[in-house]
Amino acid sequence: MIKPLGDRVILEAVEKEETTASGIVLPDSAKEKPQEGRIVAVGAGRIDESGNRVALEVNAGDLVIFSKYAGTEVKYGEKEYLILRESDILAVIE
Amino acid sequence: MIKPLGDRVILEAVEKEETTASGIVLPDSAKEKPQEGRIVAVGAGRIDESGNRVALEVNAGDLVIFSKYAGTEVKYGEKEYLILRESDILAVIE
Amino acid sequence: MIKPLGDRVILEAVEKEETTASGIVLPDSAKEKPQEGRIVAVGAGRIDESGNRVALEVNAGDLVIFSKYAGTEVKYGEKEYLILRESDILAVIE
Amino acid sequence: MIKPLGDRVILEAVEKEETTASGIVLPDSAKEKPQEGRIVAVGAGRIDESGNRVALEVNAGDLVIFSKYAGTEVKYGEKEYLILRESDILAVIE
Amino acid sequence: MIKPLGDRVILEAVEKEETTASGIVLPDSAKEKPQEGRIVAVGAGRIDESGNRVALEVNAGDLVIFSKYAGTEVKYGEKEYLILRESDILAVIE
Amino acid sequence: MIKPLGDRVILEAVEKEETTASGIVLPDSAKEKPQEGRIVAVGAGRIDESGNRVALEVNAGDLVIFSKYAGTEVKYGEKEYLILRESDILAVIE
Amino acid sequence: MIKPLGDRVILEAVEKEETTASGIVLPDSAKEKPQEGRIVAVGAGRIDESGNRVALEVNAGDLVIFSKYAGTEVKYGEKEYLILRESDILAVIE
Repeated sequence: MIKPLGDRVILEAVEKEETTASGIVLPDSAKEKPQEGRIVAVGAGRIDESGNRVALEVNAGDLVIFSKYAGTEVKYGEKEYLILRESDILAVIE
Repeated sequence: MIKPLGDRVILEAVEKEETTASGIVLPDSAKEKPQEGRIVAVGAGRIDESGNRVALEVNAGDLVIFSKYAGTEVKYGEKEYLILRESDILAVIE
Repeated sequence: MIKPLGDRVILEAVEKEETTASGIVLPDSAKEKPQEGRIVAVGAGRIDESGNRVALEVNAGDLVIFSKYAGTEVKYGEKEYLILRESDILAVIE
Repeated sequence: MIKPLGDRVILEAVEKEETTASGIVLPDSAKEKPQEGRIVAVGAGRIDESGNRVALEVNAGDLVIFSKYAGTEVKYGEKEYLILRESDILAVIE
Repeated sequence: MIKPLGDRVILEAVEKEETTASGIVLPDSAKEKPQEGRIVAVGAGRIDESGNRVALEVNAGDLVIFSKYAGTEVKYGEKEYLILRESDILAVIE
Repeated sequence: MIKPLGDRVILEAVEKEETTASGIVLPDSAKEKPQEGRIVAVGAGRIDESGNRVALEVNAGDLVIFSKYAGTEVKYGEKEYLILRESDILAVIE
Repeated sequence: MIKPLGDRVILEAVEKEETTASGIVLPDSAKEKPQEGRIVAVGAGRIDESGNRVALEVNAGDLVIFSKYAGTEVKYGEKEYLILRESDILAVIE
């Protein structure tokens, strides 16, 4: 398994068909377009200036909207994943 | 529902007609133009260096003026929303 | 009413005629030119790293000199205002 | 009177003739050239991360050397002043 | 032996054949491509603002994914290594 | 006398002949070239985030090597001086 | 002797022949190339935000790998040295 470091998460990008299913449709404009994904694994969190680890706000299994051009792609086994920082995640779809 | 992360909020941009109704008219100049919107959901707030979460100053339902070119557009169900950071909100219309 | 967020203030720019009246004349040079305005409303202040809110040094009613190209213009009712950060205010005219 | 905000000061630039009198002569080189001035008013100081105000190191009446291209010019009554941050003041002439 | 300083680690990049073996295949896209490597040595960690050393999250022997263009190459004995900061490591493969 | 502010020092640049005497010869390369000088006066030090003043590591009278293109030239009386920050001083020659 | 300030060190760059002897060979690539050197003197360390001095991780006599284009060259007596910050040192060769 791939375990992200610090405040990083690993996501499986959700296909466009699935996107429509969950209700998110990306509008057609010049603005930055977000993308939907499901979190596969989360890091242990960054360490703050007091030396404490700050747990992430998101969890494995969460369906999230993230900044489309953020992160790094990796392929593990047969699947493609994205590794990005929690700060590139905009919102959780509940 | 979409739940924004950290110090982000989700807004519904207010149409121009409604803008006039609430009294805000965007002047015609070279300066950055703000836009009006109604907050739909707010994040739990950022975590400060002491490890405490800082609640947002705005709440769901607030009518706000925000920086026009800030944020990321998402469509959820039939409506378009904007996800932006609280720091991109300039003022609350009371 | 418009309530600015954080360390922002809302100003009514003072017309040039009024500027002369209060004694401020903008010199003719290549330097950044300030402008005079009267504060209409102030935010509650930013939150410092200890989690305390830092009250602004200026108050509603203050006549101030601010950095000319700072801020965002809004029109509310019949009047034009400027929303800017307290750090863009250079001095108070007493 | 004009009261500067935070860590700003208001200066009256000292004319070149006076500069010679006090002993400072600006050398002819490609380096940044400082300028001499007398402080007219000082701000209350910036607020540090512990929430305490940090008093300025300079006082009204001090003759100082400041960075020539710093600050903002204002004219008040018949005189021209400069508003700049204390960090743009290099030294005090005692 | 080479001992990295602060929050740096020394890596042995894993050859492409081995990459396939461990399951990571780099996708063909315009995104930043990560690379796989095995950690040879880790630094003692950076010192935080409280004066405490922050131990690294990775250990010698860990198989990691790192940002491809990060770090500095060194050759020691017959082998090539990479020295990079822990922040350039994206994830650990467990 | 000129008293530098904060973490600034005032230096008298040492002439090349004197440089040779003290043993420092500036090599002929594309790298940044340092220069030698004697400290004439030091500031009281910057104030840290705890509100304490941090005394400078150098003292008046020290012969130092500083970054050649740093600082601001001033002429006081018949002599030329340089005002620069302590961080632009690389080393003390003992 | 030359005593570096703060978190700076003084290095004697190790010649290429010696480099080969100690086992470091700089690979031929487009990446940043490090260089080997022996530390001659270290500064007392930077002062952190709590007002404590942070001792350096390296000592005089250490053989180190440093970032090739970092630092400032000085000649003292007959030898050439480099003054650089500890953060430009990548690793110690033990």
